[in-house]
Amino acid sequence: MNKSPEVPQPSKELLQRAADVRIASIALGQTTDGQRRTALNSMADALNAWSKEIVSANLEDLDRAADEGLARALLSRLKLDENKLMEAIDGMRKVALLSDPLGIRQMNRELDKDLILERRTVPLGVLGVIFEARPDAVMQIAALAIRSGNGAILKGGSEASNTNKTIMKALKEGLSDSEVNPHSLALLTTRQESLALLRLDGLVDLIIPRGSNELVRFIQDNTRIPVLGHADGICHLYVDSAADLAQALRIAIDSKTQYPAACNAIETLLLHKDIASSFLNSAIPLFEQAGVALLGDEMSCTFGIKDVAKEEDWATEYLDLKLSVRVVSGLETALEHIRRYGSRHTEAIVTSDEKVAERFLSAVDSSGVYHNCSTRFADGFRYGFGAEVGISTQTLPPRGPVGLEGLVTYRYFLRGRGHVVSDFASGKSKFSHQDRPL
Amino acid sequence: MNKSPEVPQPSKELLQRAADVRIASIALGQTTDGQRRTALNSMADALNAWSKEIVSANLEDLDRAADEGLARALLSRLKLDENKLMEAIDGMRKVALLSDPLGIRQMNRELDKDLILERRTVPLGVLGVIFEARPDAVMQIAALAIRSGNGAILKGGSEASNTNKTIMKALKEGLSDSEVNPHSLALLTTRQESLALLRLDGLVDLIIPRGSNELVRFIQDNTRIPVLGHADGICHLYVDSAADLAQALRIAIDSKTQYPAACNAIETLLLHKDIASSFLNSAIPLFEQAGVALLGDEMSCTFGIKDVAKEEDWATEYLDLKLSVRVVSGLETALEHIRRYGSRHTEAIVTSDEKVAERFLSAVDSSGVYHNCSTRFADGFRYGFGAEVGISTQTLPPRGPVGLEGLVTYRYFLRGRGHVVSDFASGKSKFSHQDRPL
Repeated sequence: MNKSPEVPQPSKELLQRAADVRIASIALGQTTDGQRRTALNSMADALNAWSKEIVSANLEDLDRAADEGLARALLSRLKLDENKLMEAIDGMRKVALLSDPLGIRQMNRELDKDLILERRTVPLGVLGVIFEARPDAVMQIAALAIRSGNGAILKGGSEASNTNKTIMKALKEGLSDSEVNPHSLALLTTRQESLALLRLDGLVDLIIPRGSNELVRFIQDNTRIPVLGHADGICHLYVDSAADLAQALRIAIDSKTQYPAACNAIETLLLHKDIASSFLNSAIPLFEQAGVALLGDEMSCTFGIKDVAKEEDWATEYLDLKLSVRVVSGLETALEHIRRYGSRHTEAIVTSDEKVAERFLSAVDSSGVYHNCSTRFADGFRYGFGAEVGISTQTLPPRGPVGLEGLVTYRYFLRGRGHVVSDFASGKSKFSHQDRPL
Repeated sequence: MNKSPEVPQPSKELLQRAADVRIASIALGQTTDGQRRTALNSMADALNAWSKEIVSANLEDLDRAADEGLARALLSRLKLDENKLMEAIDGMRKVALLSDPLGIRQMNRELDKDLILERRTVPLGVLGVIFEARPDAVMQIAALAIRSGNGAILKGGSEASNTNKTIMKALKEGLSDSEVNPHSLALLTTRQESLALLRLDGLVDLIIPRGSNELVRFIQDNTRIPVLGHADGICHLYVDSAADLAQALRIAIDSKTQYPAACNAIETLLLHKDIASSFLNSAIPLFEQAGVALLGDEMSCTFGIKDVAKEEDWATEYLDLKLSVRVVSGLETALEHIRRYGSRHTEAIVTSDEKVAERFLSAVDSSGVYHNCSTRFADGFRYGFGAEVGISTQTLPPRGPVGLEGLVTYRYFLRGRGHVVSDFASGKSKFSHQDRPL
């Protein structure tokens, strides 16, 4: 990688810490389901025992951040009071209850008599997680990592450093009462270290950035390690001519306003020309009431939208109460628009025409394609995964909301009785390739 | 990505060609199993019809390459005579017969009444394939790409340019007789274009390099697009104290000599101290007979190996009749050696002790871990995949030998009846998360 000059070489100390996590993670990968469950409950117990220290460390961070003039939204994310902490502890116990993603047999094939190929899920190894502000992320990520048998090197925002350090102390204390080596988790505290983390290929198997687009892009551009995540979330809702108008309105309002700062909120509404006028007639006052600013193309402006959308609007993730609206001549134009401006996150169609719906669902290559429902369902909890590390808009798996299953890989196990390839090359032996029950 | 200055921005023409492939690939992704099978057979027919032209184009390339003094090994890889062509055509018809990797339902879950989440396999989109010399790769990759519903942009070595162009003409003629758009395949011919391919993120979903370590590393360092493949293949064989000696010898010889230039051949032999002397007693003459040069650590040199292995030998992929040998005090030292020098490709143990074997198989985190058989089995055909694009030593899937299944991803389909998230947030609706039969 032709890394930025600003990405330093890892220090000897960092290399040693990462190697410690790696070695601990190999032992962790061999623990049983029950041992990992116990480890999570033990971490939860320790957090509970340390709750006063954690809350007061957080108050220190909050005081300092307020002095330094941190924005109010960030202060609220930084805050970890008794309630939020108890919720996080509860979340950790819930992750303990999720079913084990490890050891799942995906293949069981006889290649020849007594030569058996198995493929089973195993942990990735070590996760590198870089996140901003929210200290509850430390607990959530630690829970997901240990549950899936992975070590984790975490780097949180400096605003939360007292909180994070205290949480990590408690987590390690919890692990030391379990069969899982406390070295399975490490917290980095300096910016230099978090940058050097990007160079730990061979020691870190997956980088998970949780933060702004800029953070994700910077990381993608500066590491050889695979990066899980998404930069943009530009989601579209297409209202077809055969849409049930009331349904389309409900879905449009929910997709935009239920939580506009989420990546699965829509940024663009595409309207079939035959329904645009009547839809906007009802929609404009509803959006106005919800505080949503509408930006329209020429045609939708003739139907009452006042502000004109510029070219760059179609490619912008507002993350705000703002929505671009375009009238299209039909499905194909809508598909072309999505292909051009979409970020392959989640797109939805509202229509009563099953054929049109199926064409949309098969032609749009986003990680989620929806029919007659809100894009806001694109979420690990709503999908029933119990917990998520984030949403990936990459093409290769894991994509979409990523839960425990996305934190594992697989390994091929081949067991023989002295089998060699030369016997197959000479024709003495022949492959049977018989699948056996999983 | 802070790309090398030598990686140029894609030209307008290249962007247009890549966009054509992308659009064709979206239609290709919606074809049926039968349509894709027919397309492969139609390409095979066309190759057959064009066989004279292809062989004579290859003769031109061979003449020019000989004039330019290309090494003999490369000339032999460049050569595509009638026989080799017929084999390639036959291979294409075999890929047509492989079962469809697309449309496989991996999840079918009710989130709420009439709100159904499905996950099905879909194509990746567009593959970018960069390979050296061998013109048969064009046919093999075209077959795998079309069978799995993916478009492909190919760049072959300039030595084979006449052959590749003629093959591509035939393939496109074949496709034009099928339901698959001939624009699904494109051949790049200049070095500038192949470098600019690395910058086509958004248009190309996966880069598959087939060539030297240096090629793979250069590509990994210069693209934001995921890269499938492996740089090094440093495979180990560990002979335990409880090994059956005759079996261990057979496996060691096969793992090293059956095809030493393959990435799944062993580069290092680790011997338990209690068996090292008797093993080497028999092995040294056998390896000598097979023309294998042995390099040993201090201890194995006392058992008769003449040349001393240097530190860098443990980290070298010889791809040749050369083998490093180290005597270890036991399993844990062997595991540590593999952790330090291995490339997570394939490692094997020979032992009659099931406990030791299981410890090895669970502690080594390579993509393949073998017990009592040769590392040379690490291969898509031997695993029963029918065809492979290569072997990946990455941690994330697809890893190990990658066949059709590794060229697909998945997409979440959510179908509702006007469902919105606000109803779940307010408590009016509740998630059922009921899995239904697949």
